[in-house]
Amino acid sequence: MPYVNIQITREGTAPGRDAATAEEKAALIKGVSELLLNVLNKPVTSTFVVIDEVDTDNWGWGGLPALEYRRQLAGAKK
Amino acid sequence: MPYVNIQITREGTAPGRDAATAEEKAALIKGVSELLLNVLNKPVTSTFVVIDEVDTDNWGWGGLPALEYRRQLAGAKK
Amino acid sequence: MPYVNIQITREGTAPGRDAATAEEKAALIKGVSELLLNVLNKPVTSTFVVIDEVDTDNWGWGGLPALEYRRQLAGAKK
Amino acid sequence: MPYVNIQITREGTAPGRDAATAEEKAALIKGVSELLLNVLNKPVTSTFVVIDEVDTDNWGWGGLPALEYRRQLAGAKK
Amino acid sequence: MPYVNIQITREGTAPGRDAATAEEKAALIKGVSELLLNVLNKPVTSTFVVIDEVDTDNWGWGGLPALEYRRQLAGAKK
Amino acid sequence: MPYVNIQITREGTAPGRDAATAEEKAALIKGVSELLLNVLNKPVTSTFVVIDEVDTDNWGWGGLPALEYRRQLAGAKK
Repeated sequence: MPYVNIQITREGTAPGRDAATAEEKAALIKGVSELLLNVLNKPVTSTFVVIDEVDTDNWGWGGLPALEYRRQLAGAKK
Repeated sequence: MPYVNIQITREGTAPGRDAATAEEKAALIKGVSELLLNVLNKPVTSTFVVIDEVDTDNWGWGGLPALEYRRQLAGAKK
Repeated sequence: MPYVNIQITREGTAPGRDAATAEEKAALIKGVSELLLNVLNKPVTSTFVVIDEVDTDNWGWGGLPALEYRRQLAGAKK
Repeated sequence: MPYVNIQITREGTAPGRDAATAEEKAALIKGVSELLLNVLNKPVTSTFVVIDEVDTDNWGWGGLPALEYRRQLAGAKK
Repeated sequence: MPYVNIQITREGTAPGRDAATAEEKAALIKGVSELLLNVLNKPVTSTFVVIDEVDTDNWGWGGLPALEYRRQLAGAKK
Repeated sequence: MPYVNIQITREGTAPGRDAATAEEKAALIKGVSELLLNVLNKPVTSTFVVIDEVDTDNWGWGGLPALEYRRQLAGAKK
């Protein structure tokens, strides 16, 4: 009876998209449910998955909001 | 000093509604706070309740998004 | 398909106990599942409940660990 | 490699605002990341921070929705 | 920069074990990190995974503690 | 009325310790409560802090359990 919470930033994976698509979210749900079946033998009917999409302003890494941290990382690589 | 997080799908309980009403959410807050008072003797002033409403695309069960899983269950019962 | 997470301090409700009993935890599970049935019409078979017991050193309120905050509150009332 | 989740009500800190500003959220991210560096020696590049903004209807305290509880507290102080 | 929280009951997958093994937990970590890479193109170095193991007394389903619910389901199938 | 959840690995900050000390945890509680006071004007009496200590086997980064990922990083730097 697992519960899985997946937190991601609210962003698209391709130009013109501003969030994960329904198909991508369905693939996460399917993938993680099957993982728990394969590794721990949990039936998929016993697994809940909840996906939280978080605005990039609300996600911090490196002491900075997400987009600012990425810009810093990108600059450091030059 | 309990903290309770209630996660529900964003859906209405009656036709024409697309989410839990303020009254329903107040009833959840009241009910769970009183439960902790009755069972563990926690004063209601020591209990925080946070309700998260989750889009049905973001909730998985049975390896599928919530609405698809319900359709599958409904079909199986026929 | 609700998911409820109840976080409480790891403490007993009576002398000689250092944690909630199995009976108290079963009462929380039953109570919150029935609340979601009554308020939002969610079948109890669609509700997961997870209880987290947190050491009092790990719970803060009023900027202090829980037991210290309670002592401060008790002192303030005198 | 800490993860910090900060849950706040969706409200402004000044008239005319209805939510925390990007600057305030950046200050939370910076502050908590530095706290983990100072107290536990965790590099800021190892800390994730996720801020959840919760509607006041969805936050309960004292057995009541947040705004109602505040009104009750304000009334009790008179 | 995803964060994934996997909550499972504290139980073994084979006789003589009372919890998931380190190998099983490593397989969950690897599997879910690769899933986020494949579906959303998130580098595995940007994904945190936290596994919580929950005592069966602390997990509720069907309004009952987990083991009791399973016994009820098993009985209903006879 | 903020709620803050701080998740850290269960490790000591000095030789001979295998977990954060009570003093370190009190410093986290104090620091984050004051941060919310300073940034969002939340009284410390309105802030709950819950610290979760997670076994290093149960924490994943880079697709690996935490200690293994650190060894990999340390090796890459040579």
